[in-house]
Amino acid sequence: MCSVLTRVRPIHRAVALSLRLGANTEGSSYAATQSRRLSPGKNSVLDLQRNSRFYCSRIAKTEGLLVRQLFEVESSTYTYLLADTNTREAIIIDPVLETIDRDLHLVEELGLKLLLAVNTHCHADHITSSGLMKKRIAGLKSAISKFSGASADILLSEGDKICFGKHYLTVRETPGHTDGCTTLVSADESMAFTGDALLIRGCGRTDFQQVNQWGSKLKLYHKHVPTCNTDWMCFCESGQTVSTVGEERKYNPRLIKSKYEFVELMNSLNLPKPDKIDIAVPANLVCGLHGL
Amino acid sequence: MCSVLTRVRPIHRAVALSLRLGANTEGSSYAATQSRRLSPGKNSVLDLQRNSRFYCSRIAKTEGLLVRQLFEVESSTYTYLLADTNTREAIIIDPVLETIDRDLHLVEELGLKLLLAVNTHCHADHITSSGLMKKRIAGLKSAISKFSGASADILLSEGDKICFGKHYLTVRETPGHTDGCTTLVSADESMAFTGDALLIRGCGRTDFQQVNQWGSKLKLYHKHVPTCNTDWMCFCESGQTVSTVGEERKYNPRLIKSKYEFVELMNSLNLPKPDKIDIAVPANLVCGLHGL
Repeated sequence: MCSVLTRVRPIHRAVALSLRLGANTEGSSYAATQSRRLSPGKNSVLDLQRNSRFYCSRIAKTEGLLVRQLFEVESSTYTYLLADTNTREAIIIDPVLETIDRDLHLVEELGLKLLLAVNTHCHADHITSSGLMKKRIAGLKSAISKFSGASADILLSEGDKICFGKHYLTVRETPGHTDGCTTLVSADESMAFTGDALLIRGCGRTDFQQVNQWGSKLKLYHKHVPTCNTDWMCFCESGQTVSTVGEERKYNPRLIKSKYEFVELMNSLNLPKPDKIDIAVPANLVCGLHGL
Repeated sequence: MCSVLTRVRPIHRAVALSLRLGANTEGSSYAATQSRRLSPGKNSVLDLQRNSRFYCSRIAKTEGLLVRQLFEVESSTYTYLLADTNTREAIIIDPVLETIDRDLHLVEELGLKLLLAVNTHCHADHITSSGLMKKRIAGLKSAISKFSGASADILLSEGDKICFGKHYLTVRETPGHTDGCTTLVSADESMAFTGDALLIRGCGRTDFQQVNQWGSKLKLYHKHVPTCNTDWMCFCESGQTVSTVGEERKYNPRLIKSKYEFVELMNSLNLPKPDKIDIAVPANLVCGLHGL
């Protein structure tokens, strides 16, 4: 059994970066984009015979890994509960203040020992329950990216491993939506929890929270596919609860754009200010406890 | 490859019934219920070491089986898209009128050949898109229980097999919420699509649509656990997207009641009339096409 957090060794960091850069090279190819556009209809569907891993036929490939998806309807947030079914050690990703009772009730029913509440980034649309959870579960730690500007027990960096029982998630830095966005990738690379960095057929907005707007868009563009081996991802958008990297590379209208088209699109969105940003961000900078 | 529908042979029907009755015998045991109540706290959590199948560690155990969960927010309906990743033959369960474009777009993107749109029952909270889908996809068939009172290309009975490629779902009649409620169970019994017959920590109401109210409650009580081997289920309730039969037997506040307590509870609910029932039910009796 490993501790909750394992820091990355140099060799691991190098591997993570090379995988991501490989994905980016493919994603930004103008020729490849044009080729996709010029071959609509039947030829554009995914080639299943050649690569059945495009499909998410399983939640978790690894035996003894529990994965539960929990929806919070007001902010359309998916919270994930992951656990080792043998040791019962568990972590929770992006827990929401309004659903803390539901989440902790499930943790209790399943007999889990919750080690860590981790946020993929400093959310603007809801308040995290990680701080309140710490008050209710002795020994529970909180975690968030060191680039988020938020306080937490553990500040995460590229390549860190979040361990629970025999399982772990690897931290990938995927900034752009915010500077502190991370994607959490399962050990077998069958799952990536992308937060708002990448959405099904979309991606997080790039016009708030951190100041370098131009840089943010480029960062998001260059890091939107966390690895070239991950075959599916979990995130929240328009009722689809899961997708795959293969699908997003082929059909995500933002991923198939060139770098310059992508920046132009993101600049033209003119999205309204999120309703809860003035409440949620200050609260989330202190694990959701601001004013509570 | 088998045809879309395979009728049950007598031996199959007998097996299905015996499994269900076995589950019922356990579920209705007053002594067992009392025992669970008298052993709260740590002792009441699920014994994972003894039975790791309590946990849903996978979406589908069978290779080459695609399963997609699609949420419709207004009626809180989960639509399921299932496909054989080799033959691309697919079926859709409980498609909703408002999300027909999303669903058919995904079918097209994934290059699937949709054979059947099946409804678990005649819904009162939304209009099915099965009729409109038939108009948009040549050769698509619709299906619903023969006890639903609704028209469809295929009227389903206990034990029927709904085939797509090498995969199939078996029809289990689980009346009570409506007379025509069915639960669709995957070939490996790792998944059960229960519609409204069974919800996470709840069950469908028993006070509308069909006339024999007392009988409806007893039917639901006796059939709420479709098989004793199925280790998890998919349905929609309060943000949890999946559970297991093991969990529901232990924690579903309705499942752990005696038959008489259950009937008493269901009689005391006094639920308001569903907003859309006067529009949805007449429409769903004709595949959603009433007035369209």
